[in-house]
Amino acid sequence: MTTSFANLTEFRSLLRSMPDCDGAAMEEARAHDGILTKPPGALGRLEDLAIWYRGWRGGARAEISAPQIIIFAGNHGVAARGVSAFPAEVTAQMVANFQHGGAAINQIARVNGASLDVVPLSLEVPTKDFTAEPAMDEAELVDALRAGWEAVDADADLLVVGEMGIANTTSAAALAGALLGGGAEFWTGRGTGVDDAGLTLKTEVVTEAITLHADKGDGLETLRRLGGRELAGMAGAMARARQLRIPVILDGFICCAAALCLARSAPGALDHTVAGHLSSESGHRRLLEALAKEPLLQLNLRLGEGSGAGLAIGILKTALACHAGMATFAEAGVSDA
Amino acid sequence: MTTSFANLTEFRSLLRSMPDCDGAAMEEARAHDGILTKPPGALGRLEDLAIWYRGWRGGARAEISAPQIIIFAGNHGVAARGVSAFPAEVTAQMVANFQHGGAAINQIARVNGASLDVVPLSLEVPTKDFTAEPAMDEAELVDALRAGWEAVDADADLLVVGEMGIANTTSAAALAGALLGGGAEFWTGRGTGVDDAGLTLKTEVVTEAITLHADKGDGLETLRRLGGRELAGMAGAMARARQLRIPVILDGFICCAAALCLARSAPGALDHTVAGHLSSESGHRRLLEALAKEPLLQLNLRLGEGSGAGLAIGILKTALACHAGMATFAEAGVSDA
Repeated sequence: MTTSFANLTEFRSLLRSMPDCDGAAMEEARAHDGILTKPPGALGRLEDLAIWYRGWRGGARAEISAPQIIIFAGNHGVAARGVSAFPAEVTAQMVANFQHGGAAINQIARVNGASLDVVPLSLEVPTKDFTAEPAMDEAELVDALRAGWEAVDADADLLVVGEMGIANTTSAAALAGALLGGGAEFWTGRGTGVDDAGLTLKTEVVTEAITLHADKGDGLETLRRLGGRELAGMAGAMARARQLRIPVILDGFICCAAALCLARSAPGALDHTVAGHLSSESGHRRLLEALAKEPLLQLNLRLGEGSGAGLAIGILKTALACHAGMATFAEAGVSDA
Repeated sequence: MTTSFANLTEFRSLLRSMPDCDGAAMEEARAHDGILTKPPGALGRLEDLAIWYRGWRGGARAEISAPQIIIFAGNHGVAARGVSAFPAEVTAQMVANFQHGGAAINQIARVNGASLDVVPLSLEVPTKDFTAEPAMDEAELVDALRAGWEAVDADADLLVVGEMGIANTTSAAALAGALLGGGAEFWTGRGTGVDDAGLTLKTEVVTEAITLHADKGDGLETLRRLGGRELAGMAGAMARARQLRIPVILDGFICCAAALCLARSAPGALDHTVAGHLSSESGHRRLLEALAKEPLLQLNLRLGEGSGAGLAIGILKTALACHAGMATFAEAGVSDA
């Protein structure tokens, strides 16, 4: 199995030769689900999740025991335009908070039995302001994609990718607008909590970005122009997870914008992913609709850090535990309908 | 603290003298939430849950470490009318399955770190067919309420009550119709999966029950007439939890019908409860609206057993872990907005 890539051409080629799910394993899982001690379909989406997961992991009736959360952090040149409620130094401060165990995602990882890795990406070198020029050159994009690719633990059995990066809802809105159309107003939200004047400014900035970079290339080229290193890191990690057949839970607006870039470069690139939650960031619902993903949770989170997807780890673990651990009607001596 | 009751009059009196939440603890929790390292409100409902939970538990910034799940089981005389897709002996068979660890709720309890107690209630003596006479006499109701009351572990810090009882969606629909109006069609659903002819029959049975028992008394009297032992057990356990200030996660349609009986006998009796999920049993959405409860999860479950509420334990645990474990802006040296 190819374990890395030297340039964008090699990465694109890898994306187009990814493994698919195991249809026979999925059928075996569906048949097993049908004889467990419950009315047919009574576990709802938990049943669908277990069948889908087993399709990706192959034959074993395994539970989820080694989920991995990776948080990528990056700084954005466009932050200098004043698009965030928080100053840019908060990116590095929050990385230290992750490393010391004080952030929400640290608690979420602990409760849900996940490992947590923090990957800061050249925080001292923000990407270029994408209202003036592309955010990254190709080498920078490839470095960030590769950092994501290499951060995935090959022994993980479930992956969540999260992010930290002041101004990155601006980047995500610009990516969604450039790749999906609809205009800046359609995609721009309040992020960490800008006021009305801040939202107006942010929308103007996103309009400038879309005008400059829309229709200039595929998902990865658009990621180079409008993304940040942490978005590229997430994209690289999701691609590596696909190569390893590790199912991925998508997080909120920024994670889904990174995922969109993959999907626009390789159809089916997100087949190994499920939407963890619906964020209250306004563009997320539209982005999930564009990706044709139905969120598992809707708890009005808008924090990033992989928090919503991390919370959904417990749902997937429970789904697989039911699938693997329940008795059949025959085993339990329970009369069928 | 009174630890039990001898008759329905004493139980009603206990219900009207229950403790309320600690407003000062709730305010302290709200203030603490405001200085944690996240944008204000970015953890959405997790923040509300933590503040609410701390109000009920009092001062300590504790995590949830001892959740208890109790499953009550009972048999219904009305099952003889053919209202379920499964035969009545399945109640006892599933109790054995719970005791041997083979049911969905066993796996859900394990993944979410909860203890599980199974309380079968006179399975060999079904309640009377409530289309002909009241389901229980007062002594039977009090015995079941007391079994629920006594099943709660005083050291638990969160409670889920679930049920098993063939025909109990018929009982729940009749209770909702008798107490809330709207007619049998409004409340009767497919339960474990009756077909169209079965649904027509079941709706007729619920109509007969409502006609005979509506407007004959308060919530507890209606519970005596239309409930089952497992519904009364759940009601008794929820009341005991209130006395002990243990927060409760409500499960699906049947659990909420039992909760409705308490609320109709003592306003505010459900203030210590939160709705764990929205079931796909058709009447559950309407019942939650009547109780003014917003569900945490919506995953198309319709299993009972406390399964949806059990799944929501992980959400509450995570909410409290964030509240107790996150660093403040000052502690982490993170710049505020």
